[in-house]
Amino acid sequence: MSVYKHARVLITGGLGFIGSNLARRLVSECAVVTLVDSLIPSYGGNLRNIADIKDRVRVNVSDVRDPFAIEYLVRDQDFLFNLAGQTSHVDSMSNPQVDLDINASAQLSILEACRRVNPGVKLVFASTRQLYGKPDYLPVDEAHPIRPVDVNGINKLAGEWYHLLYNNVHGIQACALRLTNTYGPGMRVKDARQTFLGIWVRRLIEGKPVQIFGDGMQLRDFNYVDDCVDALLMAGASDATNGKVYNLGSAEVVNLRQLAGMLVPLVPGGSLELVPFPPDRKAIDIGDYYGDFGLFSRETGWVPKVDLAEGLKRTVDYYRSEHAHYWDAGT
Amino acid sequence: MSVYKHARVLITGGLGFIGSNLARRLVSECAVVTLVDSLIPSYGGNLRNIADIKDRVRVNVSDVRDPFAIEYLVRDQDFLFNLAGQTSHVDSMSNPQVDLDINASAQLSILEACRRVNPGVKLVFASTRQLYGKPDYLPVDEAHPIRPVDVNGINKLAGEWYHLLYNNVHGIQACALRLTNTYGPGMRVKDARQTFLGIWVRRLIEGKPVQIFGDGMQLRDFNYVDDCVDALLMAGASDATNGKVYNLGSAEVVNLRQLAGMLVPLVPGGSLELVPFPPDRKAIDIGDYYGDFGLFSRETGWVPKVDLAEGLKRTVDYYRSEHAHYWDAGT
Repeated sequence: MSVYKHARVLITGGLGFIGSNLARRLVSECAVVTLVDSLIPSYGGNLRNIADIKDRVRVNVSDVRDPFAIEYLVRDQDFLFNLAGQTSHVDSMSNPQVDLDINASAQLSILEACRRVNPGVKLVFASTRQLYGKPDYLPVDEAHPIRPVDVNGINKLAGEWYHLLYNNVHGIQACALRLTNTYGPGMRVKDARQTFLGIWVRRLIEGKPVQIFGDGMQLRDFNYVDDCVDALLMAGASDATNGKVYNLGSAEVVNLRQLAGMLVPLVPGGSLELVPFPPDRKAIDIGDYYGDFGLFSRETGWVPKVDLAEGLKRTVDYYRSEHAHYWDAGT
Repeated sequence: MSVYKHARVLITGGLGFIGSNLARRLVSECAVVTLVDSLIPSYGGNLRNIADIKDRVRVNVSDVRDPFAIEYLVRDQDFLFNLAGQTSHVDSMSNPQVDLDINASAQLSILEACRRVNPGVKLVFASTRQLYGKPDYLPVDEAHPIRPVDVNGINKLAGEWYHLLYNNVHGIQACALRLTNTYGPGMRVKDARQTFLGIWVRRLIEGKPVQIFGDGMQLRDFNYVDDCVDALLMAGASDATNGKVYNLGSAEVVNLRQLAGMLVPLVPGGSLELVPFPPDRKAIDIGDYYGDFGLFSRETGWVPKVDLAEGLKRTVDYYRSEHAHYWDAGT
């Protein structure tokens, strides 16, 4: 998109899964890209994610909880893709204040920094479908009641709303995308902190059975990371998105057993097993979910293009060759 | 209610308007009452509010942002009425992090303290109708979409949801009441930080015209503080309220001009004037609001008993004799 040519773009969580894929695309469009990342080991940042573009981006290792670094970094930026977050639902329950500090408090200080030193910036915030909780109806559209089932959902919602509020009251252009399960090369696969698909891919490549919690009949939708990057860029390029929140999603809805059935054959000898739901996960499980992404499609023209079969293949191929950079065999 | 006889009750914001009125009632029911209050001058705490019961309650001056004090204070309590908050909508926009620290972060640490040292406590959280934003329909029931129009609304909502979440996931009995405009003896009248009715009463007693912003046609509902105290006690005494959120409200709905028309004659020589909406208030004004309190009525039997004519009279009478304890003539 020509709007990004020579534009100055800041990405928080820029060494993470989605941030690094977004950076790669922006570099190819000749944007001037700065990545902020805390590189906290239990989060998603990994320098390997930008190995191929490291000479074409500026990396600033800092934490979004550091308001002074943020105030310096947001100056003179044209776009801010605000992707840094604590993503683990289970961690948010065992350490709720850390989740609040990153997903709510730091978001407010990022917006305050924009208000003070760069009110002309356009912000795109990565929110989550998790905040709908257990759906009342399917597909879930943006009018569905909000009902977070964990501390992470509450804090992400606060972070999202600060963005819309600063748009509405302070005139800082901002919108939010409620991402569903995003997957692809660069996702955290060391453990399940970012997506259960991560640990599935790791176990598969390690020759261990993929584990499905419960009966595996829960429906889900998935976006391949390139489609998610398309959505972020289209949201950033459009003035129509200001002050709004949109679902992403996919026309391809599968249950977890079907998903595992597509994934497992991609590695010779792959297998799967059903295991009982761990209690900490069961308490915050939401049953079936898939989203209605019609509003965002109509307003920006976005449609997901990479189907699950292709996306899963690309993902597994990536980690079969790259796994040494994403987990230690000993951990 | 006999459930409170000899019960140990902690009230955060206990020297404030509603907290002190609640304390007075609990003392009369022979509860063992501890009041926590920060006594921050721009907030609602005022020792005069408990002058008549000061020998029958324990006062602990501390801030809900102090997790160590809170963890000590919640031990062995049977009930926790969690009323401490930053209530000024305008202050929340100019100093959003303070609002977040008090209305969200401190709430999480109160709940964490309960989880660690007193999981059997029953919590009643004072939430606000402000988080509905500009209503889609009237009267507003609990199914109405949530749409905060200021930082205060976002943070109060997070605080409310932490309570429901800790009920649902951790088994800490908790419920929330979304209070509407509460008024009566003990409310902050020094300025408009707690309710515009406060500054109206002050100006009236000072012989200045009561100022209505805009045309004064905005509809509102009001609860006299004794009715609000009834609601808090009934919510605390009922197990049916656990994990739920309820509106308060009144069958008596008036516009601001009508309200001023009832208030002004209560002081000889009282007058009113219409003034333009200050821009910072207009940006976060919500138009008409009145709530549907039927759900709470049906589940607990609560109905408001003090009508506006009587409530306003009691309020003005109180401040006519007590004003020296609530504002300096020089401020």
